[in-house]
Amino acid sequence: MNDDARPAPTPTEPLWKGRITGAPDPEFFAFQRSLPYDARLLPQDLRLNAAWARALGQAGLLNREDVSRLEDALADIGRTLLPVDAARGDEEDVHTLVEAELTRRLGDVGRGIHRGKSRNDQVATDLRMWTGEAAPALARDARGLVAALAGQAKGWLEGGVIFPGYTHLQQAEPVLAAHWALAHAEAFRRDARRLAQVKEAALASCPLGSAALSGTPVAIDRAALAKELGFAAPSANSIDAVSDRDFALGFLHAAHVLAIHASRLAEDLVLFSSREFGWVRLPDAFTTGSSAMPQKRNPDVCELARAKAARVLGRYTALGATLRALPSGYNKDLQEDKEAVFDAFDSCQGVAHALAGTVKGLVLDAGRARAGLSGFLLATELAERLAATGLPFRDAYAAVARAVQALESGAAADREPDLSALTPEAWRALGPEFTPKVTAGLTLDAALARRAATGGTAPARVAEALADVELWLADTAKART
Amino acid sequence: MNDDARPAPTPTEPLWKGRITGAPDPEFFAFQRSLPYDARLLPQDLRLNAAWARALGQAGLLNREDVSRLEDALADIGRTLLPVDAARGDEEDVHTLVEAELTRRLGDVGRGIHRGKSRNDQVATDLRMWTGEAAPALARDARGLVAALAGQAKGWLEGGVIFPGYTHLQQAEPVLAAHWALAHAEAFRRDARRLAQVKEAALASCPLGSAALSGTPVAIDRAALAKELGFAAPSANSIDAVSDRDFALGFLHAAHVLAIHASRLAEDLVLFSSREFGWVRLPDAFTTGSSAMPQKRNPDVCELARAKAARVLGRYTALGATLRALPSGYNKDLQEDKEAVFDAFDSCQGVAHALAGTVKGLVLDAGRARAGLSGFLLATELAERLAATGLPFRDAYAAVARAVQALESGAAADREPDLSALTPEAWRALGPEFTPKVTAGLTLDAALARRAATGGTAPARVAEALADVELWLADTAKART
Amino acid sequence: MNDDARPAPTPTEPLWKGRITGAPDPEFFAFQRSLPYDARLLPQDLRLNAAWARALGQAGLLNREDVSRLEDALADIGRTLLPVDAARGDEEDVHTLVEAELTRRLGDVGRGIHRGKSRNDQVATDLRMWTGEAAPALARDARGLVAALAGQAKGWLEGGVIFPGYTHLQQAEPVLAAHWALAHAEAFRRDARRLAQVKEAALASCPLGSAALSGTPVAIDRAALAKELGFAAPSANSIDAVSDRDFALGFLHAAHVLAIHASRLAEDLVLFSSREFGWVRLPDAFTTGSSAMPQKRNPDVCELARAKAARVLGRYTALGATLRALPSGYNKDLQEDKEAVFDAFDSCQGVAHALAGTVKGLVLDAGRARAGLSGFLLATELAERLAATGLPFRDAYAAVARAVQALESGAAADREPDLSALTPEAWRALGPEFTPKVTAGLTLDAALARRAATGGTAPARVAEALADVELWLADTAKART
Amino acid sequence: MNDDARPAPTPTEPLWKGRITGAPDPEFFAFQRSLPYDARLLPQDLRLNAAWARALGQAGLLNREDVSRLEDALADIGRTLLPVDAARGDEEDVHTLVEAELTRRLGDVGRGIHRGKSRNDQVATDLRMWTGEAAPALARDARGLVAALAGQAKGWLEGGVIFPGYTHLQQAEPVLAAHWALAHAEAFRRDARRLAQVKEAALASCPLGSAALSGTPVAIDRAALAKELGFAAPSANSIDAVSDRDFALGFLHAAHVLAIHASRLAEDLVLFSSREFGWVRLPDAFTTGSSAMPQKRNPDVCELARAKAARVLGRYTALGATLRALPSGYNKDLQEDKEAVFDAFDSCQGVAHALAGTVKGLVLDAGRARAGLSGFLLATELAERLAATGLPFRDAYAAVARAVQALESGAAADREPDLSALTPEAWRALGPEFTPKVTAGLTLDAALARRAATGGTAPARVAEALADVELWLADTAKART
Repeated sequence: MNDDARPAPTPTEPLWKGRITGAPDPEFFAFQRSLPYDARLLPQDLRLNAAWARALGQAGLLNREDVSRLEDALADIGRTLLPVDAARGDEEDVHTLVEAELTRRLGDVGRGIHRGKSRNDQVATDLRMWTGEAAPALARDARGLVAALAGQAKGWLEGGVIFPGYTHLQQAEPVLAAHWALAHAEAFRRDARRLAQVKEAALASCPLGSAALSGTPVAIDRAALAKELGFAAPSANSIDAVSDRDFALGFLHAAHVLAIHASRLAEDLVLFSSREFGWVRLPDAFTTGSSAMPQKRNPDVCELARAKAARVLGRYTALGATLRALPSGYNKDLQEDKEAVFDAFDSCQGVAHALAGTVKGLVLDAGRARAGLSGFLLATELAERLAATGLPFRDAYAAVARAVQALESGAAADREPDLSALTPEAWRALGPEFTPKVTAGLTLDAALARRAATGGTAPARVAEALADVELWLADTAKART
Repeated sequence: MNDDARPAPTPTEPLWKGRITGAPDPEFFAFQRSLPYDARLLPQDLRLNAAWARALGQAGLLNREDVSRLEDALADIGRTLLPVDAARGDEEDVHTLVEAELTRRLGDVGRGIHRGKSRNDQVATDLRMWTGEAAPALARDARGLVAALAGQAKGWLEGGVIFPGYTHLQQAEPVLAAHWALAHAEAFRRDARRLAQVKEAALASCPLGSAALSGTPVAIDRAALAKELGFAAPSANSIDAVSDRDFALGFLHAAHVLAIHASRLAEDLVLFSSREFGWVRLPDAFTTGSSAMPQKRNPDVCELARAKAARVLGRYTALGATLRALPSGYNKDLQEDKEAVFDAFDSCQGVAHALAGTVKGLVLDAGRARAGLSGFLLATELAERLAATGLPFRDAYAAVARAVQALESGAAADREPDLSALTPEAWRALGPEFTPKVTAGLTLDAALARRAATGGTAPARVAEALADVELWLADTAKART
Repeated sequence: MNDDARPAPTPTEPLWKGRITGAPDPEFFAFQRSLPYDARLLPQDLRLNAAWARALGQAGLLNREDVSRLEDALADIGRTLLPVDAARGDEEDVHTLVEAELTRRLGDVGRGIHRGKSRNDQVATDLRMWTGEAAPALARDARGLVAALAGQAKGWLEGGVIFPGYTHLQQAEPVLAAHWALAHAEAFRRDARRLAQVKEAALASCPLGSAALSGTPVAIDRAALAKELGFAAPSANSIDAVSDRDFALGFLHAAHVLAIHASRLAEDLVLFSSREFGWVRLPDAFTTGSSAMPQKRNPDVCELARAKAARVLGRYTALGATLRALPSGYNKDLQEDKEAVFDAFDSCQGVAHALAGTVKGLVLDAGRARAGLSGFLLATELAERLAATGLPFRDAYAAVARAVQALESGAAADREPDLSALTPEAWRALGPEFTPKVTAGLTLDAALARRAATGGTAPARVAEALADVELWLADTAKART
Repeated sequence: MNDDARPAPTPTEPLWKGRITGAPDPEFFAFQRSLPYDARLLPQDLRLNAAWARALGQAGLLNREDVSRLEDALADIGRTLLPVDAARGDEEDVHTLVEAELTRRLGDVGRGIHRGKSRNDQVATDLRMWTGEAAPALARDARGLVAALAGQAKGWLEGGVIFPGYTHLQQAEPVLAAHWALAHAEAFRRDARRLAQVKEAALASCPLGSAALSGTPVAIDRAALAKELGFAAPSANSIDAVSDRDFALGFLHAAHVLAIHASRLAEDLVLFSSREFGWVRLPDAFTTGSSAMPQKRNPDVCELARAKAARVLGRYTALGATLRALPSGYNKDLQEDKEAVFDAFDSCQGVAHALAGTVKGLVLDAGRARAGLSGFLLATELAERLAATGLPFRDAYAAVARAVQALESGAAADREPDLSALTPEAWRALGPEFTPKVTAGLTLDAALARRAATGGTAPARVAEALADVELWLADTAKART
């Protein structure tokens, strides 16, 4: 397959030539280098190196002037190289890149910073710092979805928009459209909370100062270092610190759950915007057509949202399988963690933005929604009314079932019976239990109103739930400032 | 494949014959029934029903006497059927079983309890309650592994036992055996914390009272009900409540991470107990032999621990893939959640118990461990000493690398050079930088002692870390009483 | 979690006490024993042992009489224990069970059969034999689905039943219902072929005679032995033979693909039987209701079919992750292969049977299907007609798109425009290119008829495709006799 | 996360503006476009378009001159754009790119080629063509690994190199090093065969001519078209053809199995090149060092090989989960297939090349290997000798086990007993069954020689196996010319 003709970069001098003679095989070198993706950690690695320089300075291992020159050089590297063009560098990885750039700028002073630390503790620290920013970024994206859903819920609640609630994709009971929107919002609120735990886990302990595996030999203040880099504490065990990737797998799990939630919302939208359901129209800016069929309006956003949940699951699976049965200490297998984490983040962010835009712009046709309601949608309400007269629920259920079957078999093919439209006589014919007291006022609104316990679809409850979500949005908006 | 000759149970009357005529196809009925595994939720379902009966009573929908009779009957069902023999019942699922048993005992009173609730909210509640117990049970198992490791660490620290620390499975630097044990303990401590979050998530919101999807039509106090069943609050949205399985996937994630940690400890033990590493002997009670090779001592526990991490990953994958793109509301696909959760729990518990027993009983041969140390294990320590004289670390690294190569090429095939055993003359021959000041006292103990920052392998640091773990064990032991 | 109160079996004497002192820890013994599931291999293990006895006889290592007694005893074990009640035995695994039963019956003669073989080569051989039967069994199930689909296709083709073809779940072009059914049939035909390759791979090479890993020390004729057990040849390398599980993972892959196909058919049926699509009614014998909502008809079969594809994927993931990075030779991790394979088989068989029954019994309402067709469904046909006049396709596409937009914006809210019902005047108003020559006879039937290349939905092509499938069904039916 | 500052490309005019008003949201457009990865299909798409132009010509729908101009323009596009720089184009996907380039070159003639086909059938065809080349390319890589292993096996067989065979990572029985190498070779030979089936499946049926889903409306000869593009036949059903991705999942499965095999070889090499096993030295060109520890020689190739198997499993999982429960017909979710397939290919190819180089260059120290053999490695051979005297195998096993235990408990701590070095007196003391006839000549060579059945480690058998592999290598080399 010569179809992918990116030439391999010329191997640059790696940092590790200690006991190895001769140049690495170029294909092998290209195979094992990580700069094409770990360059994304450059901002973190620069902050890490600056903090390390200061720590060495405080420990008396670098003089004040050298610390200052290192800080300046690191800032300059950031100015020069960010945003990173990963295709550019020839170095093996981001740590080698930073060391090389420092050496170019400062000679021996630059070469001196790599003391008492190792790529093992550096990469673990960098990735934790990155994850500590990525998790709240995704939480904000989840919040954006909540805001979009709450915005629509507000309008639909005011409009009293009703559509069918489903179980098994069969119409089950009527619900407020706002209640449906808030169901999805609830899931994304959980994501925001879960991602806060992920951030906390990532920043709970700072590996820097663990060196290769046994702890740094230089007498630095790890607690101060950890604090400076935004961590709660230094890691408690150096062997564990360099090979622990729980935080990365935890991030993938949280991203996966977010992606699942997005995929479920997306599936609902694919259905509701189909011609058959038909009460939702996706905004043009988030819809595609067909190159062959001029009449098509395709919900590509939603379909990709479904697929990305599978993609993130694949990333989770890959990292989980990689970690399994690894011997303790750093092993090169761990290098695969970064692409997994970055890709899951990008996938979720892409989905969240596109889906939030879609939700904001979608139009719900309340008339079509109501027209699509099954005439049997009040069967459970009816059974409940019978039960309220003292009939055991199982008998009430059976009576309604008999009525539904009788109505169905007697109906004309093109006209579905509607429980809310039967005359008292029609009811009487269906059974003596269907007294006027039971069947009077059997309406959608009455059924909704009866679901008045916390969390139910009664308008008053939904209004409360919406208010609660709006309060949360306000609180989390404040938290960001 | 007639090899699996379990006869299908005769279909019992299901609860849902409403609009369906005729008997279900027997093979289909067997295919879709869940009693063989959801019977495990019987204790939870009995508690749920008792609480529901009381809630109906408080709402004035059942009289005091009937509530009392229901409570008694539910207690009697527990006495009669627990522990459950899943092969016994013919019912479709655990909820049908409870309703059938109540009806057998109480007739119409028994049939009356199924009002205002649905199997959808019941099963979600039951599984949350179960998970709320399973998570702390696994946390206790993780604690058991910490205790076993800490117990061994204590002895090894007192004995000053040293063995090689590895990266890439190559000897890297010397570490205390206790430091290695505490590295694994650290991972299991994280598990205990993660599982506490899983418990909290499972019991955060009580679905009961959501009914099929739109909320219960009966006027019960959901907040009191949630509290009685051990939940923090009632669920906020009924549609979300019946189809949310985040807590189950979160449990699988936490179980998976625990299983990964166990598999990594297991892998170390497989290696250390091999003839080639050879300094660990597993206890006979946790070792198997070969049916063909009389001399074998096989670490089956550890190998199964490795495999179970893959198994739990498979369960996670299955549930994640099941949830993806499900339309909102309850769908029968969700029925697959239970086997996944139960099997992950059983797998982790089996691993944790067997591995804790193995750790407790293993014997470490300190002499063999020390005899197996590479003579080059102090290379990093030497480079650090050079760096401490003011040489840039990269130059120090290069000087040591040259020395290692020179010693290696000059060594007799059967005798490995040992950096700690060179004479001052030998050092002088390797380079002018290797002054007596640099090379004197280049010992394992000196190298260990220098790793004295927090989290390092210096004996004083390891003693502190052990004390911290012992304190945690004491605290968590108290927490259980 | 004391909720699962199956008492652990008392450890029986294992076969491997060689160098191990004392009894195994009971919990560990229960954790590592496999009889509860590998008992399913008893038929295979009995055949294997009988063949081995004969091979030892032919090699002069057992006398004729002992061979005969062993054969009789093995047959007797089959008569006594099959079908297996896995809960019964206390032995460690199926091989120990067979050896124990032989010893009970024949004393030393029974104990003598375990010579020159090992559980390592036995279990690999047993599982290959089992897979060699399971794969064609699943192929027959796939064939059953093809037959059910072809049966319906025949009727629908005769009735000229049309429904919408979808892309992105949006109506795209009209298709014959028979064409849709045969699309799914095509997928299941591929399954049958794939499973035939799986069978071939399983029976390609016989591990028996590889002993623990280095090859059997007894001078038996492995080629004859392989042939007698149904294999193409003996395995070529003993180390590979005892640890190769490619055939098991290949089986899981094929089962997974079959399950995916079933899940896609199931998804179509969930949609088509929803009230909104509404032209398919599932048979009562394969439909469930709701315990709360009397009017419900739920497609549980289809939902479980969807979920089982995720379950089988989980099994594949688990075995793949288990095999990764295993050192060569047998490792206990491999023990996990069996539950994965058995469960995937059972899941697929359950799905295939239930879904075939569902397909056979479903009723398609041709009138409702036709009534549900979008009036724009002929847009592509119209564009093609324009292109046939010489207009570049992109211009034709644009012209039709303009027409569709114009019609849509001009339409009354409750009446969708229908391209096939426009008058020549209406066409003229839409653009000069819409000449009567282009727009005359713009009907569903004309559109179908034009898709007349191989594989298209033109009735003649579908009839040919159906005939081809029926021929295949006849051929494969013969193959089974 | 502003750390990834690739600016989104400006949306170019998509092909599908039919019924959509206004420009797509730029972020959404970037999210859903596939050119950055499907540009890799450009060679296939150019061939496809040329074949399609000729087919339209043969059907009389394009004149000869236009066909010729299209062919020339397509060839020119290839010359200009290949190898593809994916970052360059702004188009939505590779099909849009080709149509845009044709239009730039030929105006209306270029725009005319998109008639009777759709991106749905094009992308399915392109990816099948690509897979049809990728599978044999991977098969050649597998063959390269077989060749490298066979090359080493040849030398080791001539040198009579022995090392321990393992089960459970415990020394089990002696094996020839060549036998070990050929075990891995056997696995890669299976890969080559499996990949041949994958190629066959990919090229079994050509989707082109299925159009969007119902079949092309133009009267082309699909059989000729399929043949010209290298397929066995045109697809049999248009709905199935555009949404079938079995071939892609089958490719991922085969790549996954290959990656598993590589990971197992890699794991053996990590172990064998550790200081503790110590008889293998990896070539410098495929070894890395440590940036902190000057003495390190790290087997990064092997560790990455382990991790890539997990990565490919993740890709399989993602595609499998994506396909599950998709409704029939094309859905945008399918777009995710390409990155999965490409990445699996690249990962496997990278592993195969690096690992083949590693195997070719590794040096096995036969002396260290032999020195590392356990003195108990002949225990099974001894048991077999006892059994050959007529003792039931279980009694022979027990006798040897007793002897091993007695020797072990009597041995000095630093000297392991060696069964092949005991005097007749020492044997006598261990039990009366250990007669000189049984124990004489108990050597490694005798043990190897006895494993003389097909597939065993006896030198004669290994020589035959090697000859068979060499013949296969010669045959497959011929097949490529």
